[in-house]
Amino acid sequence: MDKESIIEILNAVAEGEITVSEAELRLKLEPFEELGFASVDHHRGLRQGVSEVIYGGGKTPEQIVKIAMALINKGQKTILITRLSKEKADIVNKDMDMQYYEMGGIGVVGSIPEPNTKGTILIVTGGTSDMPVAEEAALTCRVLGNNVKCLYDVGVAGIHRLLAHSRDIMNANVIIAVAGMEGALASVVGGLADCPVIAVPTSVGYGASFGGLSALLSMLNSCASGVSVVNIDNGFGAGYMASMINHIGGK
Amino acid sequence: MDKESIIEILNAVAEGEITVSEAELRLKLEPFEELGFASVDHHRGLRQGVSEVIYGGGKTPEQIVKIAMALINKGQKTILITRLSKEKADIVNKDMDMQYYEMGGIGVVGSIPEPNTKGTILIVTGGTSDMPVAEEAALTCRVLGNNVKCLYDVGVAGIHRLLAHSRDIMNANVIIAVAGMEGALASVVGGLADCPVIAVPTSVGYGASFGGLSALLSMLNSCASGVSVVNIDNGFGAGYMASMINHIGGK
Amino acid sequence: MDKESIIEILNAVAEGEITVSEAELRLKLEPFEELGFASVDHHRGLRQGVSEVIYGGGKTPEQIVKIAMALINKGQKTILITRLSKEKADIVNKDMDMQYYEMGGIGVVGSIPEPNTKGTILIVTGGTSDMPVAEEAALTCRVLGNNVKCLYDVGVAGIHRLLAHSRDIMNANVIIAVAGMEGALASVVGGLADCPVIAVPTSVGYGASFGGLSALLSMLNSCASGVSVVNIDNGFGAGYMASMINHIGGK
Amino acid sequence: MDKESIIEILNAVAEGEITVSEAELRLKLEPFEELGFASVDHHRGLRQGVSEVIYGGGKTPEQIVKIAMALINKGQKTILITRLSKEKADIVNKDMDMQYYEMGGIGVVGSIPEPNTKGTILIVTGGTSDMPVAEEAALTCRVLGNNVKCLYDVGVAGIHRLLAHSRDIMNANVIIAVAGMEGALASVVGGLADCPVIAVPTSVGYGASFGGLSALLSMLNSCASGVSVVNIDNGFGAGYMASMINHIGGK
Amino acid sequence: MDKESIIEILNAVAEGEITVSEAELRLKLEPFEELGFASVDHHRGLRQGVSEVIYGGGKTPEQIVKIAMALINKGQKTILITRLSKEKADIVNKDMDMQYYEMGGIGVVGSIPEPNTKGTILIVTGGTSDMPVAEEAALTCRVLGNNVKCLYDVGVAGIHRLLAHSRDIMNANVIIAVAGMEGALASVVGGLADCPVIAVPTSVGYGASFGGLSALLSMLNSCASGVSVVNIDNGFGAGYMASMINHIGGK
Amino acid sequence: MDKESIIEILNAVAEGEITVSEAELRLKLEPFEELGFASVDHHRGLRQGVSEVIYGGGKTPEQIVKIAMALINKGQKTILITRLSKEKADIVNKDMDMQYYEMGGIGVVGSIPEPNTKGTILIVTGGTSDMPVAEEAALTCRVLGNNVKCLYDVGVAGIHRLLAHSRDIMNANVIIAVAGMEGALASVVGGLADCPVIAVPTSVGYGASFGGLSALLSMLNSCASGVSVVNIDNGFGAGYMASMINHIGGK
Amino acid sequence: MDKESIIEILNAVAEGEITVSEAELRLKLEPFEELGFASVDHHRGLRQGVSEVIYGGGKTPEQIVKIAMALINKGQKTILITRLSKEKADIVNKDMDMQYYEMGGIGVVGSIPEPNTKGTILIVTGGTSDMPVAEEAALTCRVLGNNVKCLYDVGVAGIHRLLAHSRDIMNANVIIAVAGMEGALASVVGGLADCPVIAVPTSVGYGASFGGLSALLSMLNSCASGVSVVNIDNGFGAGYMASMINHIGGK
Amino acid sequence: MDKESIIEILNAVAEGEITVSEAELRLKLEPFEELGFASVDHHRGLRQGVSEVIYGGGKTPEQIVKIAMALINKGQKTILITRLSKEKADIVNKDMDMQYYEMGGIGVVGSIPEPNTKGTILIVTGGTSDMPVAEEAALTCRVLGNNVKCLYDVGVAGIHRLLAHSRDIMNANVIIAVAGMEGALASVVGGLADCPVIAVPTSVGYGASFGGLSALLSMLNSCASGVSVVNIDNGFGAGYMASMINHIGGK
Repeated sequence: MDKESIIEILNAVAEGEITVSEAELRLKLEPFEELGFASVDHHRGLRQGVSEVIYGGGKTPEQIVKIAMALINKGQKTILITRLSKEKADIVNKDMDMQYYEMGGIGVVGSIPEPNTKGTILIVTGGTSDMPVAEEAALTCRVLGNNVKCLYDVGVAGIHRLLAHSRDIMNANVIIAVAGMEGALASVVGGLADCPVIAVPTSVGYGASFGGLSALLSMLNSCASGVSVVNIDNGFGAGYMASMINHIGGK
Repeated sequence: MDKESIIEILNAVAEGEITVSEAELRLKLEPFEELGFASVDHHRGLRQGVSEVIYGGGKTPEQIVKIAMALINKGQKTILITRLSKEKADIVNKDMDMQYYEMGGIGVVGSIPEPNTKGTILIVTGGTSDMPVAEEAALTCRVLGNNVKCLYDVGVAGIHRLLAHSRDIMNANVIIAVAGMEGALASVVGGLADCPVIAVPTSVGYGASFGGLSALLSMLNSCASGVSVVNIDNGFGAGYMASMINHIGGK
Repeated sequence: MDKESIIEILNAVAEGEITVSEAELRLKLEPFEELGFASVDHHRGLRQGVSEVIYGGGKTPEQIVKIAMALINKGQKTILITRLSKEKADIVNKDMDMQYYEMGGIGVVGSIPEPNTKGTILIVTGGTSDMPVAEEAALTCRVLGNNVKCLYDVGVAGIHRLLAHSRDIMNANVIIAVAGMEGALASVVGGLADCPVIAVPTSVGYGASFGGLSALLSMLNSCASGVSVVNIDNGFGAGYMASMINHIGGK
Repeated sequence: MDKESIIEILNAVAEGEITVSEAELRLKLEPFEELGFASVDHHRGLRQGVSEVIYGGGKTPEQIVKIAMALINKGQKTILITRLSKEKADIVNKDMDMQYYEMGGIGVVGSIPEPNTKGTILIVTGGTSDMPVAEEAALTCRVLGNNVKCLYDVGVAGIHRLLAHSRDIMNANVIIAVAGMEGALASVVGGLADCPVIAVPTSVGYGASFGGLSALLSMLNSCASGVSVVNIDNGFGAGYMASMINHIGGK
Repeated sequence: MDKESIIEILNAVAEGEITVSEAELRLKLEPFEELGFASVDHHRGLRQGVSEVIYGGGKTPEQIVKIAMALINKGQKTILITRLSKEKADIVNKDMDMQYYEMGGIGVVGSIPEPNTKGTILIVTGGTSDMPVAEEAALTCRVLGNNVKCLYDVGVAGIHRLLAHSRDIMNANVIIAVAGMEGALASVVGGLADCPVIAVPTSVGYGASFGGLSALLSMLNSCASGVSVVNIDNGFGAGYMASMINHIGGK
Repeated sequence: MDKESIIEILNAVAEGEITVSEAELRLKLEPFEELGFASVDHHRGLRQGVSEVIYGGGKTPEQIVKIAMALINKGQKTILITRLSKEKADIVNKDMDMQYYEMGGIGVVGSIPEPNTKGTILIVTGGTSDMPVAEEAALTCRVLGNNVKCLYDVGVAGIHRLLAHSRDIMNANVIIAVAGMEGALASVVGGLADCPVIAVPTSVGYGASFGGLSALLSMLNSCASGVSVVNIDNGFGAGYMASMINHIGGK
Repeated sequence: MDKESIIEILNAVAEGEITVSEAELRLKLEPFEELGFASVDHHRGLRQGVSEVIYGGGKTPEQIVKIAMALINKGQKTILITRLSKEKADIVNKDMDMQYYEMGGIGVVGSIPEPNTKGTILIVTGGTSDMPVAEEAALTCRVLGNNVKCLYDVGVAGIHRLLAHSRDIMNANVIIAVAGMEGALASVVGGLADCPVIAVPTSVGYGASFGGLSALLSMLNSCASGVSVVNIDNGFGAGYMASMINHIGGK
Repeated sequence: MDKESIIEILNAVAEGEITVSEAELRLKLEPFEELGFASVDHHRGLRQGVSEVIYGGGKTPEQIVKIAMALINKGQKTILITRLSKEKADIVNKDMDMQYYEMGGIGVVGSIPEPNTKGTILIVTGGTSDMPVAEEAALTCRVLGNNVKCLYDVGVAGIHRLLAHSRDIMNANVIIAVAGMEGALASVVGGLADCPVIAVPTSVGYGASFGGLSALLSMLNSCASGVSVVNIDNGFGAGYMASMINHIGGK
């Protein structure tokens, strides 16, 4: 709040234009209102130009269609819908044209854009059961304009499978490491790579994996530098983060 | 041995400035079984192209001096020593020239290099008690060649303090958000920024903070996209990750 | 137990009117029986005058009808039934007139009373998935005679959505902040408001939200003063507490 | 700067007693970017209208003195310093006049104000070991202008001790229930009282109390309505919340 | 085979009523290596002298019938079958005569014996939802030959309901306190009673009750002396323990 | 004041040996509101009929002496002081005559009474490190008037050590099983014994014993019937419970 | 990487055959590529000769058939399929000849081989509910060429049942101890045996068994030497480990 | 108990040589006593011939000397004392000749025997901080008669360091993998080796390593077959287990 605004309020009080309590309220509110956060939001949209995302998890198909329609009407070309079950997708598809990717539980309205950055995001998984989470990440990356390469089932129990791909690891701009059970993949990939690694623990496993807790703790404690972690099964979050990093070069 | 040095040697060979056998001697490219531990670090430096780091936590001052000396003899220009107590630092300083930063528990041997990338890493903390972790992150970033800006004590309980710095948040290339207690800072910063945010939970707090668990879970569950998390109190890890991201543009 | 009572018992023993063991039992029981707790209960009902509440969770529709009928017969005008599923509500409605609010899982027998206090209870939620818990709180408040205003989906990832309502926050008498995932809403609202904030963690989220644990710990560790917490998903508890606070002025 | 002072200044302007520019000078309504940290606290004081609080936990005695002096210079009449050890207090007392309350680890600079609200805050503890937390709460309440009454060691294992004080419980405006071990006190008090109960779990206990977790969970699951919970050992938070509630009547 | 039977046989031998070899046949005193599992149970009956119990939880109706038949053929008069669902009970009842108690999930083959000890076991529950666990305890006690009295829904949120029964509490020989949520009942009853209290945490509750963990920790940390705890929802275990204690007088 | 004393007074009244007013004086039956804390303990003694216990844990030596003196003055013959460190004990012993038992951290003022019940309480421990907890239990039992027998270091890893004492196990009236690490002792003893077993988990162990959690869970899940559990390291609680059970016969 | 390879690369650079960046990449990759891990895998297959295993848990019947067919075509004689439900097994059996063992959820394609080692693996369980896990272990052992003996339902609550089999325990080469609830079996067997014991915690139990956590912690804290632990319900892992140990003699 | 023994007891009863109750007691006790567990222990000692071990953790130096002397007097040639601090070792060494190994906290009385089995136990650690635990394991193995080879600091963040030793891994008979932080070493080694791997989680790490919990869960969830786990920091347990396995060939 600059000096002029305060003086203006005080003058208004002095001249009886506003009451003391109105002045008090305006003094209390000013710091927030003056920052104009609507514009912040606009600004962010301008610079990031990211496709819009709808978290489908807690929404009805009707709500999803309604939101998507509104976005399309405002000119959005591509809309990503995450955590979308087959059942919901079928209902949505009756009302609008949407491409559904069942493994990752992802719907895409509009066309996936051409990559608008050169670097590649490499996605590796420990096992085949981690694929749904990896697919969620991969589609998120693609919709956000990235080149993506996927290596599935290259877990550390057969380390040669992973090493056979060291050229891909060396060449990636960002890596997303997706693994459940003991989550050791993140550390091994982190040790091989010289780029940032986003680790995604998955809830794959049983018994003492405690719904992904084992992989989560493992990844947080990674002895390799350059590894950071997102929530269990959060393929979307990893993809979004990786895309942000992958676009930094072009800024 | 950093990436630039290797390329320099290879260029010299390509341009006939040095002979192949001279290059071979200088490269000392060590099969592991012959040259052992130190060489391993060289190779790693090659892969990840960073200044060398010594984790001081479980080491005696004597071990630290010994490793640092070996690195200096092999041509390392800057060495970062983390988790170094005042007591250990005093002993190390008797044997070698090291700058000690007490708040972050960091020692630096050699000079901190000029930034070799344009973007800025912004470090924000929730409270003053989070400063040691932030300092560890800040010094890590600086030693790895980054511009760093720090905003301390801008926690969400007084949201206007944080909003007053929205320009810094908008301009950053990467943000490190350091917070204990409820760790809400990561989500709020993540919602304001359009760059990747590395969240560092700290063990600051008492009672149901359970040594940082509260902030850790909070950050992993952040409702803002573009936030990933490192271990509790892991300022170094966050700084290393941020530096990797900040250098992608120059690749 | 006053002197007279003791002497009376001793006299009865001395005169053989009661046996020694009967005297011993009466001496043991006196402190409790003399406090007359039935009247306490009556007293409480008199002063609070709150509408009666039936926790529908573990009860059969038949049990619910029976209890409600009994209350009506004793002159109760409004009865709130919480945690009531659609299935149970349909059965209850066959036997008695009850208004059912599906989102909050609430049934109301009788009419919702006019507010009997001036202040407003503001209910804010982080996301749309938190709405059922917020609805439980809102209806509880209304049935207990309060003005209620609700702001849904104003989570901290888009802080401007929340700040746009700062006038409501400044004017509230009590605020109920309902949020899952990282639960940061409570801290941000607590920092903006100058009235008590009741925080309700919800089980909304997945992975490391561990059924609401993440939001719960976050809220307990809030760096904002004036925030207290109720159980996960306990909209009723928050509404009841808020109503108690909101009625203090009129005492 | 408290709310009353601001209104006083505004009134003076409205009544022409002081000029606008004088008012502006006295208000020192600080744009954040110019005046920094201390001014932030002024603004907060305006919003929440309370005496200033310094969390002494992570601060050096020198820092505490410096902040307190600055507050005094800006006209603050009473300053509450929490989590202050005897050792720190002795050092602080060399530089400034401060009353130290050892049991609650509280320092008070300036005089404790007369209560400015009629209602009484009742503080009850389960055992004598819970007294330090209760004292922190009690002094916080007093410094914030409340009447306080304390009942120590009235835990539920001897329920008659608690029942003997039912008159106090009935008459309180707000109750703070402080207990470790199994924390049952909150439920029993919550069942007896017809006013809001703030429950404070303490870390008193051993073994399966897990540092206060047992009491915390117990209080969150209270079967009594009208109970909300703050962090383990957070006497200040409970006192602050209770004071907010106790002042609602006077708003 | 119960203790009395063995002594009876031995007496018959001592008095010359039966021959040694007849006794040997009847005793079937089974070296483990010869007679196997079923005989083991006989021996156990000898040691612990109780009616036989079949844990129905992980068994098929067919297995239950088979085991029960074998026990009947060996002279067992009463068989208690716990954790028996309605579905299984219906199937069992086709093959043999069994009384089924649905609330406690208990089947009883044979008649419930007359109490063979004078003292009374009092069972109290916090709420109506705790009744199934209490019923499991009550039937276990009855089948094992005890007088049982039950007080349901006397939780601590309405302490007068519990105090109204203080005479029962004073007169009991053993008390079983069954409660979920915050489990405070055990402490309050433990403070009132002068007999052993067996506390049974139940999984009744939601959110931070974490499946009974809250009540369990609460009961383990009881500030009342003379309280010990069994597993969550373990009504049978509490009943068995209480019966053991209640029979000590007659030893 | 114990139960026997009260009955004695009542008998004296009944038989005309003392007058009613004399009895009243001697009884000192204190309404809570008049006489306060100390009297409460008298009343409690009446209800539970045991020697007085002071929990020394959170008290200063001065407080302990003061309370003990008050109890002696009121006629208490034996006082048990638990959780008393050597340092505190030395200070206490300067002011009053107290027997200190260092291993169990127990002080006894007055003489340990002769056993007033026939049955024996058997205390068994898994290892030698569990002895302090066992000693706390043993002394508690002795002070409360029981015969006690101890078997130390009979853990299940050498099951023959335990089986060698099966006669003791068969003959006991109550058994206290004290064990850390995996706590299997409770199950094995529970399977052998035909009397109630009180299990005490200890914090003995390291790593995944998590401060006694492992033994605690183990004992709660015991597959043997007739086992109940007290808090980790709670030797006093187990001894108190065992004494209650052991005195039932004589009621 | 040997000297020759480095010189070769350098020569190629000197002669312009490869570019500097190609040389840099080859230098970075060499250490991994030269180790030839494909051959490692081959080597391992050669020496272990173990039958192939398919984890059926996350796979469709179609995927299972496809993988199994491929293995058969490469000459595999026996294939073990774990975590195979009855439903999946029925579908698989339409396409190929597979023996299905329902209790252990195991399918075997081809014939179970004759034991190729002399020692016996003994499998013991605490209760009948642990049998499915034990069966998974037993079939794994048999398919891998071992003699197996099983003792079911010999839990420690009836220690004589276990002791009756001490001869089997003494004669075993390896023992697999399978138990849920408190998992004490591992310690008792570990104390009796003089061979390695593999402990398998199971999720059998309820309440405070927390899905097998109780048994897991118990087994990790075993006071007996020579006990190691696998994941909860991991019968396959225990069988595989036991087979490895049992084959060491024949190496 | 065989037929003859039973008849003998019955005859004694018939002839009045023993009373009925004496007979009952003998019948109850026999099954345990007849199994002669003292001899079991003897038998085990005979077959295993392992050196004796004293857990020094909870014992005084005096107790250690006393036990060791007793063992020496019975002819024991080598005694291993674990968890022995430098301070205790110095005191022990005053009374008897003991070799002290400070890193592993191990004392050895007598000489370390020559290996009595051919296979080698390989011990690998993730970092230098894991060395104390590894040393405890190594010395345990040596004292028990094994060849041991150690590879320190070959963690997975620099996977080439580990791969450089693949020959050692291929040749080992048993491997002990010691690692803290994320514990990924066990999975990678388990994938490379064709022998049993004993994994030892260590408490090395900070923050979300939660005292070794992270490494423990990681190792329990290992995706490699042939890995089993011991308690956190339990080097002795791993060494003992490895030695048992390594001696199977020679049985």
